Amino acid sequence: MNNSINKQILLKSRPIGEPKESDFALVETQIPEPGEGEVLSRTIYLSLDPYMRGSLSANKSYAAPVELDSVILGGTVSQVIKSNHPQFQSGDFVLGRNGWQSYGVAKGETLRKIDPSQAPLSYSLGVLGMPGLTAYAALLDVGQPQPGETVVISAASGAVGAVAGQIAKIKGCRVVGIVGSDEKRDFIVQELGFDAGINRKTQELYPALQEAAPNGIDVYFDNTAGVILETVLQQINLGARIALVGLISEYNATSPPPGPNLRPLLIKRALIKGFLVADYQHRLNDFLRDVSGWLKSGQLKYKEDVVLGLENAPRAFIGLLRGENFGKLIVKVSDDPTANKLGTQPD
Amino acid sequence: MNNSINKQILLKSRPIGEPKESDFALVETQIPEPGEGEVLSRTIYLSLDPYMRGSLSANKSYAAPVELDSVILGGTVSQVIKSNHPQFQSGDFVLGRNGWQSYGVAKGETLRKIDPSQAPLSYSLGVLGMPGLTAYAALLDVGQPQPGETVVISAASGAVGAVAGQIAKIKGCRVVGIVGSDEKRDFIVQELGFDAGINRKTQELYPALQEAAPNGIDVYFDNTAGVILETVLQQINLGARIALVGLISEYNATSPPPGPNLRPLLIKRALIKGFLVADYQHRLNDFLRDVSGWLKSGQLKYKEDVVLGLENAPRAFIGLLRGENFGKLIVKVSDDPTANKLGTQPD
Repeated sequence: MNNSINKQILLKSRPIGEPKESDFALVETQIPEPGEGEVLSRTIYLSLDPYMRGSLSANKSYAAPVELDSVILGGTVSQVIKSNHPQFQSGDFVLGRNGWQSYGVAKGETLRKIDPSQAPLSYSLGVLGMPGLTAYAALLDVGQPQPGETVVISAASGAVGAVAGQIAKIKGCRVVGIVGSDEKRDFIVQELGFDAGINRKTQELYPALQEAAPNGIDVYFDNTAGVILETVLQQINLGARIALVGLISEYNATSPPPGPNLRPLLIKRALIKGFLVADYQHRLNDFLRDVSGWLKSGQLKYKEDVVLGLENAPRAFIGLLRGENFGKLIVKVSDDPTANKLGTQPD
Repeated sequence: MNNSINKQILLKSRPIGEPKESDFALVETQIPEPGEGEVLSRTIYLSLDPYMRGSLSANKSYAAPVELDSVILGGTVSQVIKSNHPQFQSGDFVLGRNGWQSYGVAKGETLRKIDPSQAPLSYSLGVLGMPGLTAYAALLDVGQPQPGETVVISAASGAVGAVAGQIAKIKGCRVVGIVGSDEKRDFIVQELGFDAGINRKTQELYPALQEAAPNGIDVYFDNTAGVILETVLQQINLGARIALVGLISEYNATSPPPGPNLRPLLIKRALIKGFLVADYQHRLNDFLRDVSGWLKSGQLKYKEDVVLGLENAPRAFIGLLRGENFGKLIVKVSDDPTANKLGTQPD
C-alpha cells in the first residue's frame, strides 16, 4: 500500500436513496506537498460512520456536503510523513480528517497527536474518539440514567450503541439493546453484559420490549429513529429522557418520513433532545479518563469490524447503512506499524 | 338559576372523533347533602379547557376518564352553601372541581378559598389559575426565553397562549402568534402587543412564519401539535426549546396521527419536552406574584369568553375544540354576587 501514489475515493454522483458503488470512484493522483504550517500524513485507518451519509447529499445537514468529484470526508488516524508545523514530526501518529484517501495534507491545528502506547491507534476513531464521546455524553448528559432505571439502546452493537449500553450497565441500569441479528443479540448479552437483547428483524418489537423492559423505559438512546422510536415512546415512563443521536433508519430516505405521534411525550412529561457530539467537547477529558479506565479494568469491551483496503470503503459504507457491520467499522488503508505490538490490537 | 334542583350534565356516550351534543345529557337531581368534612357549594363558573377531551375517552391519558352516566369533570369557582369542614363557612368563594353541575359536594381538603377583593372570581379558572400557571411555567421553565429571541405560540388567543405570549413580550422576546381568524390575529397584535400574528386558516404557514420570524424560532410554545409543529420544526434555530403543552389538533382524532419528522431536532440540537401543569405546583407562588403584578400594572391583559347557562356547556365545549372561542372559555352557571362590584369584571 505504501508507494508514491495517492489513492482517493471521490464522490461521482449524489446517491438517491441507498448509495451505490457507482456513486464512488477510485482515482490515483500524486501525493500532495504540504504548504506552510501544514502536515502530510499517510492514512492508516479511516472511520466509517452512519452520519457521513448526510454529507453525500446536497441537503442541509450538520455534516457539510461533499462537493462532486471531491474526496469524501472522514476521520482518520495517520502517520506524519513530512511536517511544516513545529508541533509535528515525521513518524508521529495523528488523529485528523484525511478523508477517503491514502495521503492527506492538513493544517497542523486540525490534527491531534496520538500516543500509541496508550491504546491501539484505531481506538481513537471509536471507543476513545468521536463515537465513544457520543455514547458517553448523550447517555450521561441527556439520558441522565439513574441506578435501577431501564435504558433502551438501538443499533446496540454498533460503535456508539455498544459503548453507551456498557456505560449504562456500569451506572447500575437495566439495559436492553435492539440489534439486527441473532449473532449481534448474543454478542451484546453474552459479551457486553446487556440484560436483554432484541432482534428487530425476527422479533415483534412491541411485545419484545414489554418483556425486556417490564418496568417501562426511562432512557432511550436513539440511533435510528423510525419505528423503533415510535414503539419505545409507547412504553416510556414518567419523566423519560430520549437522546436523539442518530437517524440510521432514514439516512437513505429520499424525503423525510413522518415521525412518531408525540402524545406520549405529553402524557409522560418526557423529553426528546437532539444530540451532536461537537457540543460536548467540554466533556472530552472526563470521557477519556472514565472510558480509558473502564477499558483497562475490563468493565468496557470494544469490538471493531476492520475492512482491508481503501478500495473497499464504498461497499463497506453501503453495508454500514444496512447494518451489515458488526462492531465499529473502520477501513485499514495502510500498514499500522504499531500493530501486533499490543495484545489488544484487533486484527 | 338558584333553586333546590341540581342540574347536571352527564356523559351519555363516549365521543368518536368530534363530540356531538347527543353525547351529553342534562338531568335534574336533588341537591346533595355534605357528609363529614365535606362542603356543599353552588357552582358559579365552570372552566372549559381542551384537555378535558381526553377524559371523555376511555383511553389512558393524564386526565382520568369520566365514567358513562357520570357528571363530567371540570374546575369550578363556587360559593359555599353548607360546610362540615372547619376551614370553610357559608358564603365563602372556593376554587374546586364541582364539574358540570350547579351544586357540588367536595372534601374540604380539595378546595381553595378565593379572595374576591383581589381579582374577579373567574380569573381563578384562567389567568390566575391552571391555564395561567401552564403559560407561565411552560414558557419560562421549559422554553427559557432570552431577551431578543423569537417565541412562537400556537392557539395564541386562547386561555394559555395569550398569557404565554404576553409573558414572552415582558421578557423581551419577539413574539409570533398563530391563530384561527383575522379577528384573533388583530386581537393578539393590537390588543396584546404580539409582534406578528398568523391566521393559519387563510395564510400559508411556512412562508408566513418565515416572514414573521425572520431570524428563526428559538422557543415554540405548542398547544396544538400537528402541522403547526411540523412547520415550526423546519424553522427552528440551534438549541431551540419546544414545550409540548397541548394537542388541540388531535384531541378529536380517532387514532393517533403520525407526528413530525424529527431530523430538525438532531440537526439543531433542539429539545421537545412534554409539559403538565401538575408538575409545576412549586411555581405557584412565583406565578401568582408575577402575574398578579403584571395584571395590576396593565402589562398583561386577559380576555374571557363567557357562555351563559350550564345547558350550553356541551355546545361551547364542542366549539372550543374547533377553535370557535375567543379568549378563555368559561360557563357562567349561576349568579356571581361579586360581579359589577369590580371594574374589571368581564360581563
